[in-house]
Amino acid sequence: MDMDGPARDGTGTGTGGAGAGGTGAGLNAEIVCVGTELLLGETLNTHAAFLSQRLAEYGIDVYHHVTVGDNPARLEAALRQAAGRAGVVIVTGGLGPTGDDLTREAIARVTGRPLVLDAGVLEGIERYFAARGRSMAPGNRKQALFPAGSAILPNPNGTAPGFVLEWEGGRWFVALPGPPRELRPMVDGPLVPYLERWSRRAGGMRLVRRVLRVAGLGESEVEHRLADLFARQQRVTLATYARDGEVHLRLAAKVPLPPGAEPGGAPGRDPGAPAARAGASPSPEAAAASALAELEAVAAAIRQRLGIHVYGEDDQTLEAVVGELLRRRAETVAVAESCTAGRVADRLTAVPGSSAYFLAGVVAYANAAKVLALGVSPHDLAAHGAVSEVVARAMAAGVRRMFGAHWGVATTGIAGPGGGTPEKPVGTVYVAVAGPGGSRVERHRFLGDRDTVKTRSAQAALLLLYRALVEGLEAGNAGAGGPA
Amino acid sequence: MDMDGPARDGTGTGTGGAGAGGTGAGLNAEIVCVGTELLLGETLNTHAAFLSQRLAEYGIDVYHHVTVGDNPARLEAALRQAAGRAGVVIVTGGLGPTGDDLTREAIARVTGRPLVLDAGVLEGIERYFAARGRSMAPGNRKQALFPAGSAILPNPNGTAPGFVLEWEGGRWFVALPGPPRELRPMVDGPLVPYLERWSRRAGGMRLVRRVLRVAGLGESEVEHRLADLFARQQRVTLATYARDGEVHLRLAAKVPLPPGAEPGGAPGRDPGAPAARAGASPSPEAAAASALAELEAVAAAIRQRLGIHVYGEDDQTLEAVVGELLRRRAETVAVAESCTAGRVADRLTAVPGSSAYFLAGVVAYANAAKVLALGVSPHDLAAHGAVSEVVARAMAAGVRRMFGAHWGVATTGIAGPGGGTPEKPVGTVYVAVAGPGGSRVERHRFLGDRDTVKTRSAQAALLLLYRALVEGLEAGNAGAGGPA
Repeated sequence: MDMDGPARDGTGTGTGGAGAGGTGAGLNAEIVCVGTELLLGETLNTHAAFLSQRLAEYGIDVYHHVTVGDNPARLEAALRQAAGRAGVVIVTGGLGPTGDDLTREAIARVTGRPLVLDAGVLEGIERYFAARGRSMAPGNRKQALFPAGSAILPNPNGTAPGFVLEWEGGRWFVALPGPPRELRPMVDGPLVPYLERWSRRAGGMRLVRRVLRVAGLGESEVEHRLADLFARQQRVTLATYARDGEVHLRLAAKVPLPPGAEPGGAPGRDPGAPAARAGASPSPEAAAASALAELEAVAAAIRQRLGIHVYGEDDQTLEAVVGELLRRRAETVAVAESCTAGRVADRLTAVPGSSAYFLAGVVAYANAAKVLALGVSPHDLAAHGAVSEVVARAMAAGVRRMFGAHWGVATTGIAGPGGGTPEKPVGTVYVAVAGPGGSRVERHRFLGDRDTVKTRSAQAALLLLYRALVEGLEAGNAGAGGPA
Repeated sequence: MDMDGPARDGTGTGTGGAGAGGTGAGLNAEIVCVGTELLLGETLNTHAAFLSQRLAEYGIDVYHHVTVGDNPARLEAALRQAAGRAGVVIVTGGLGPTGDDLTREAIARVTGRPLVLDAGVLEGIERYFAARGRSMAPGNRKQALFPAGSAILPNPNGTAPGFVLEWEGGRWFVALPGPPRELRPMVDGPLVPYLERWSRRAGGMRLVRRVLRVAGLGESEVEHRLADLFARQQRVTLATYARDGEVHLRLAAKVPLPPGAEPGGAPGRDPGAPAARAGASPSPEAAAASALAELEAVAAAIRQRLGIHVYGEDDQTLEAVVGELLRRRAETVAVAESCTAGRVADRLTAVPGSSAYFLAGVVAYANAAKVLALGVSPHDLAAHGAVSEVVARAMAAGVRRMFGAHWGVATTGIAGPGGGTPEKPVGTVYVAVAGPGGSRVERHRFLGDRDTVKTRSAQAALLLLYRALVEGLEAGNAGAGGPA
């Protein structure tokens, strides 16, 4: 259920009227990405998505992304078209020192503003090179040129500052450098006051998002359990996204932006903001509090429905949540991996400080290794096969015992493409956890290529450990094997 | 040295004249991506890069990427503009069963062709659902509608077939489904004859690429050693790309496409192809052979300069190359990982069939695990520390002995963010390999976050194993530690 119906409306993008974009209410934005490497497919365009997310968060609609190469005529035509249909045109790339970098010249031509040298910026570029023991190339001088009237966006991560230019009819051009590590801090730093200003002109609503991370339930099961919430959504919209054996449930609400200072101008309300709001009640502050409270209420309702399956929020990973549980209990874990072959250990140790609870792992790929390093019985291997409930349980118990850990986790399965049988087709995987007082096993069948089976199996193993930590070893559907 | 000068010219995109695009020589393409989720930044646009790469390979220039949402008026306007400036317009997305899926209707309106039901496709969609035990939703019926005159591109991976429509003036529309796992096989399968046809109309030159994968040398060192080849490049262009501790060196040459059959038409030369070529000499076949021979010659010269550092080509990974070396020698490997914590085992087992040579791994995170599972001496741990040449060597020898493998590989280091000291700062990593008759160790210092240090360390360990397999344990700069 990606982006169906209300979830789309909730963001305000896509189905509304095009609008002239130039002035007042309904201000929208267009993103123009510049670079022949994009048109050759040699660089993936991540700027369009990043900027669109930020603009959506500020309630600013985007109707077009356009990419052009380092060609003066096509760049200028794209900028003219964008300026004709969007109040804010954000241009990425083309600010470098070479003859192929044409953005500043193109914006100067479209707006009729001459390029002016900024002495302070030039000095900064000279310092940047001096600090690195290099001398400035002649081309870098042009990075200190800006269309007259531009406000400069400093770039601590490179030589090309960005700029913001307000020109006729309350329209704006923004120019940002191409490298992501330069562009992103600029957007989340010096561009913020402008985003807030445009947000007020776009209607003064900010989009607040919250992601609930759900594991152990499929996307359709999540939607089924929340069907009434999906049906009722109004101010808080819902959308689900399937991600590597998890479901991410996105809640979003539009929240009024408080009146704020203008960048480079007098503080107070934007003179271009819709006058209607002045007479509206409740106040923006009260409306924001009410919308945030509703977001919290919906999140709480979902947590109650889905229980333990909501393991985290926003950027929290399952391994970070498991790690935090272990740390709080001062317990340790060791892992025995066959089909995942190190993936579970790799994920558990992705968390800084994980050496406090992660002791060791054994990747027991060959059967001999399962016997030698984990104490699995050769008889069990012969009788049940390496991919079996008995062996999975023995691996988890074995690695726990060997390293004296509180918890042992194991995986054994057939990642493919070879090795499947009619009884145990490719994708058949057992995950097990052994702990104080017992063990718990699940059988799964994952579809997909070798890497997908490894990814899903590691996820299932971490999830089983998570459930054992929260519910205990006896609870839940041990041995039943749910879909991941 | 991404995309400077000749490398750009070599692809023919970006700096030429715009061209009307409709007919004959100079045919170009435009990519229109449809989906509100793209404008919200919730989905990264990977189609534009993928399609651009393919079009570049067929020598078809792309001057614009445009993204619009699920809005009928804006979609139609984007298609009309694209058709006005490009001979081939490729549209992605909007072929689904819902009311938001508008691509087929928009193309029908722009071309003036009515939508016609294809009974065979409808039957296929019904079968698709029946095979999955589900009943077809009413909306899926519209996925069997196509603008009159379209050729259908079958979709074995989903319900929405694509289509290709030739309309007035030799112009083309192509519609492809949004999900990448449906779009990509369609482009590399049923669309190929069309790409070849358009390639002939675009000038009949195909871009042939070859990637030489280089490990153990930095990007600037590679460029320094090949400086004269970079300076001399003409028909074969060179570009370097840094990738996770490797350098990928891309060679590209334009090669004439041989005259071929038209899809759905008579075989033979495209009537729209430039007539000039008939009188040109040498023949396309001879010119192609000459260009390919030059590509081979440049590749051979680079291999000779860089020697063992060129470990593979195109999509070959270092773990696949190492696996193939082990398989040919009928030898086995076991790994002992501390700071990489499973990443080396995970990569070695990414290769299908790796169970033939990969026996086992130990993730010895805690010092006790290094003693217990690998037989590292507690005295050495105390005297030298876990992150030391002595311990790395002992880990590699220990895991080799324990599992009876021909080769043992080990990593020990400080992934950070904590744990660094003035003598051993964060990023200090030892990698070791032990084999028949000895061992070899390298010390590295990697910069970057925890994941980067893990990634670079795993790469260094695999590279050391690769060098030991090719050069032997005594050769090279054992113990010296090069940059990765």
